[in-house]
Amino acid sequence: MSEKEEKPTSDQPQKVWVGFDLGGTKMLAVVFDEKLTILGKKRRRTREKGKDGVHPERIVETIRMALNDAEVDEAAIQGIGCGCPGPLDLKKGIILEAPNLGWKNVPLKTLLEKEFKCPAEICNDVDAGVFGEYANGAGRNARCVLGVFPGTGIGGGCVYEGKIFRGSRASCMEVGFLQMATEGPAAGAGPVGTLEALASRLAISGEAAKAVYRGLAPNLAKVVGTDLSKIRSGTLAKAIEDGDEVVERIVRRAAEQVGRGIGSLANILAPDIVIIGGGLAEAMPKLYLSEAEKGAKRNVLPSLRDCFKIKIAELGDYSTVMGAAAWVREEHPDPGDEKG
Amino acid sequence: MSEKEEKPTSDQPQKVWVGFDLGGTKMLAVVFDEKLTILGKKRRRTREKGKDGVHPERIVETIRMALNDAEVDEAAIQGIGCGCPGPLDLKKGIILEAPNLGWKNVPLKTLLEKEFKCPAEICNDVDAGVFGEYANGAGRNARCVLGVFPGTGIGGGCVYEGKIFRGSRASCMEVGFLQMATEGPAAGAGPVGTLEALASRLAISGEAAKAVYRGLAPNLAKVVGTDLSKIRSGTLAKAIEDGDEVVERIVRRAAEQVGRGIGSLANILAPDIVIIGGGLAEAMPKLYLSEAEKGAKRNVLPSLRDCFKIKIAELGDYSTVMGAAAWVREEHPDPGDEKG
Repeated sequence: MSEKEEKPTSDQPQKVWVGFDLGGTKMLAVVFDEKLTILGKKRRRTREKGKDGVHPERIVETIRMALNDAEVDEAAIQGIGCGCPGPLDLKKGIILEAPNLGWKNVPLKTLLEKEFKCPAEICNDVDAGVFGEYANGAGRNARCVLGVFPGTGIGGGCVYEGKIFRGSRASCMEVGFLQMATEGPAAGAGPVGTLEALASRLAISGEAAKAVYRGLAPNLAKVVGTDLSKIRSGTLAKAIEDGDEVVERIVRRAAEQVGRGIGSLANILAPDIVIIGGGLAEAMPKLYLSEAEKGAKRNVLPSLRDCFKIKIAELGDYSTVMGAAAWVREEHPDPGDEKG
Repeated sequence: MSEKEEKPTSDQPQKVWVGFDLGGTKMLAVVFDEKLTILGKKRRRTREKGKDGVHPERIVETIRMALNDAEVDEAAIQGIGCGCPGPLDLKKGIILEAPNLGWKNVPLKTLLEKEFKCPAEICNDVDAGVFGEYANGAGRNARCVLGVFPGTGIGGGCVYEGKIFRGSRASCMEVGFLQMATEGPAAGAGPVGTLEALASRLAISGEAAKAVYRGLAPNLAKVVGTDLSKIRSGTLAKAIEDGDEVVERIVRRAAEQVGRGIGSLANILAPDIVIIGGGLAEAMPKLYLSEAEKGAKRNVLPSLRDCFKIKIAELGDYSTVMGAAAWVREEHPDPGDEKG
């Protein structure tokens, strides 16, 4: 208490939280105030051009650039939250393995705490995204939020009574590996007939590329040909808009499957809000949502049918940074907060 | 504090907790001490002979009989926990609907609290069973316990960081309604291809009765014929022991399916311990466990494969009463406890 007196300032000292999204290709640092308003940000390629690995120092630099953009002093940082890929040791704050970055056992939490002299937390990037939607997006105030993010795979997360639901070692909620069918395509080396094998964006791209090959998707053919690596969510949305009915059927079917997965999971988790995020759902929110709702209805128990709403994510690219910042704040509440 | 002084007794006053299991055909009241040792019990038919409905007063009577058996005074009760069927309002402690009992909107919590002048809680019977195994059985000290109970249907529950994972309205963890296949039998009026449609004891009985009809299960045929309502877990175990290979195949296949469901769910919940309970698994623990382990391995992600153990439940018929008693104690800790 006496220390407070020692710093006579006219204004309340500024408090900020930093959210970081460590992606395989891009990284994003955002500085937030206590209402999670964005004060400044910096987006950069994860890899320095011409270099092989990624040096953790690049994260530190990027955070400093965002602070600079926000015109905020480092001393104002109350906490840094970092959404990370790969298996993590959440307690110790270590990234156990991130092949995309060339990392093994990087103690990111300690590194950031030492550098910025404030608490830091790492969490799974999808978990952070769901927590962001819970804290400030489509899942506000929900008791139980289930997030499903179809992308190359299908990630997921759950916020239960204000906390990220987590596994012993790292993350959990691998909704992409829910088994949906006894037969069907395998998701890479994983089990057969999983949700992600049936309905990820990669699964859709594979089907769409086959449709192009068969001459059934003339609009998509013009833009990407049969190279599925060129098929993006926006490309699919445009081809559908331009009249590629087969592509529409492929996307609708995948969305319906995701809905079925959601229905199946709703029987387990009884969420209040289910959030679908990721580029695909955000590029065609209406189409995606209507099919997902249909699929969910098919698989959920009648008694749970009216217990939850499916929504499209609201925060887009900012869900992970916002959630990571909100999570470090949740885990390290300011002891002065309650005293006003 | 001063009230303590007013009761000068040579011994610490006895403290007991009551667990109650309200089944469709039987009810069981058990009196426990603080170490969850059984002090006394009373098991009765739920329905009074010749009567249609069930009067809640019968629960009160049964608890008094158990107290009598334990030779414990009513004043010693610190809490009553009651595992109940059907949809519940957990907060208000109301059984919303229990068709087996002819009940609608029965405020059991209030009723017990008034009658015995102590806290009471109701919870889903399977949830209570899993909490029992967590508190005093196969799931002791686990951070996350997933319980799967194959019976007529397949019930489930989850204890996460010491608390029962619950839905907004009532229970959740309806693992029987996890979708496993796009096609397949329907579970009653429910969705098609669910775990319970494929692998419940009822599903097994259906297959076994068909095997009898086809002349493929001579030992089972002797005991039950083609009437599937007569097929019990013990009957199946005996027929397998006596050499009915087709029956063995049917049970193994169902156990493997349950394992696949467990593997699929382990990707979501990342439990430390998975407990399989119910008559079927307990009648053939070795056979059941080996198949379940095989199935789980098939569906779980390699990175999660070694994170959990599958075990057979340890508490049998007592899991629900023990869990209900432990749960009411968890929810209403004795304020004097910490002071020694």
